[in-house]
Amino acid sequence: MKRSERIAFLTKTLIDCPNRVFSLRVFSELTGASKTSLSEDIDILKRTFHKHQLGVIETIVGAGGGVRYKPKPSPSELESALRALLEEMQEPSRLILSDFIYYGDILFNPASLRDIALAMIVLFSEETIDGVLTIETKGVPLAMEVARLLGVRAIVARKTNRASEGVALSVHYKSFSHNTIQSMHLTKGAIEQDARILIIDDFMKAGGTIAGLKSLIAENEAHCVGSCVFMQELSRPVSFENHHYLFELRRKEQALKVALSPELSRLIEQNES
Amino acid sequence: MKRSERIAFLTKTLIDCPNRVFSLRVFSELTGASKTSLSEDIDILKRTFHKHQLGVIETIVGAGGGVRYKPKPSPSELESALRALLEEMQEPSRLILSDFIYYGDILFNPASLRDIALAMIVLFSEETIDGVLTIETKGVPLAMEVARLLGVRAIVARKTNRASEGVALSVHYKSFSHNTIQSMHLTKGAIEQDARILIIDDFMKAGGTIAGLKSLIAENEAHCVGSCVFMQELSRPVSFENHHYLFELRRKEQALKVALSPELSRLIEQNES
Repeated sequence: MKRSERIAFLTKTLIDCPNRVFSLRVFSELTGASKTSLSEDIDILKRTFHKHQLGVIETIVGAGGGVRYKPKPSPSELESALRALLEEMQEPSRLILSDFIYYGDILFNPASLRDIALAMIVLFSEETIDGVLTIETKGVPLAMEVARLLGVRAIVARKTNRASEGVALSVHYKSFSHNTIQSMHLTKGAIEQDARILIIDDFMKAGGTIAGLKSLIAENEAHCVGSCVFMQELSRPVSFENHHYLFELRRKEQALKVALSPELSRLIEQNES
Repeated sequence: MKRSERIAFLTKTLIDCPNRVFSLRVFSELTGASKTSLSEDIDILKRTFHKHQLGVIETIVGAGGGVRYKPKPSPSELESALRALLEEMQEPSRLILSDFIYYGDILFNPASLRDIALAMIVLFSEETIDGVLTIETKGVPLAMEVARLLGVRAIVARKTNRASEGVALSVHYKSFSHNTIQSMHLTKGAIEQDARILIIDDFMKAGGTIAGLKSLIAENEAHCVGSCVFMQELSRPVSFENHHYLFELRRKEQALKVALSPELSRLIEQNES
């Protein structure tokens, strides 16, 4: 393979499997190139990805070492994606019964989903994460996309307990929206002991669901890295550790207003200054 | 940008957005290279992707033209992925109450999900598809991944009708597993008139859910391209047009057996001969 061919091959292989470590030996077998040539190729990739803010190409030295790709949006990409999403969400036609903002279509559009998941990843870039936990239904695509970009598995709790899911652990949580006690169920063993789990959901009002998901993690003797939701209704103060949200929903003079979270607004301003 | 940088940049950009058409003008602005140099770069990509079976790089001529990437697994990649999945699914520990095969973890693992979605895409490679339709819950990640690789949006029907989804169209279907009439709901306008929709689901027994999804498409005056499920229980003959499945489940002497679908087995054999 020529250098330009190898560069295309390496880029494709790394991008397809975010966070997976490929050893130089494997790349050498696949391309027929020497490790020296490959090291040069990877240096080119590293510089190019860094210079054009395409994400991070990282070399891991030692046994089990190799090279991997970590998705990371450029500040300008993040900013324009978030502004476009905010504009979409502010469309008056999205207001339902002056009580909800409809955003189902946004979460099921792969292009928007990628932008939203990348924004979430930025907020947890310092953390080690082994898995992503969510609850059916609307959180599922978002959790899957975050898991894909992190290169980890997703775990989905269910609201009903089904025979086809095997032996399940069930916990109860208070749903403030419905003002009832509800239960959530998860196949036994789906969360490994000591695993570091990130909670992802589409919407949060008073935090009942997130509290339930946290107790599922605790019951499995695993560790909760933090939580992140796409949209948060700011009706009650939230006291979860390492909790983030992308958009906030406020009720002002009987109307609902969507805005970017103060945290992301600051991130964007830092980029501009 | 040097050629090797441009090759990395173009590969990353194209792979990130499957099936999206990028015009040479946009690439010229992003890289500062002339259209002539870019055409040469794209020829290199085309040859490399073809030679190493990394998918298809396609040039579209005329107004609105440009270049795009279409995911396509190589026959050997498809074969080894399907064999690995079959082996996983045949593990005795997956059998629940001798009535179900547990596969929730497989559908929530981004790496397996990618393989499964690529296998599904192969079966519909000749079709024009505008959107992917599924029903909550376990079909959602699969439908999302197929939609992502096709570069189209996913549409998710729900089993319960929620205020936050806005005005919904509801249809009824016969659930043979539960022996009841159930309903499914979809936000009005979620399927555009005349759109070509592919139905994706995780499991099919007698086809009640697929029939319901087909009627949702018909009610929206759209067109059903076909349907595909991850696993099919072969208890009743199925007569849907352009219907495919990846794995089949048979009951033999009181035991459940999983096998690759005859169609995929043939595809693999053709590759070996």
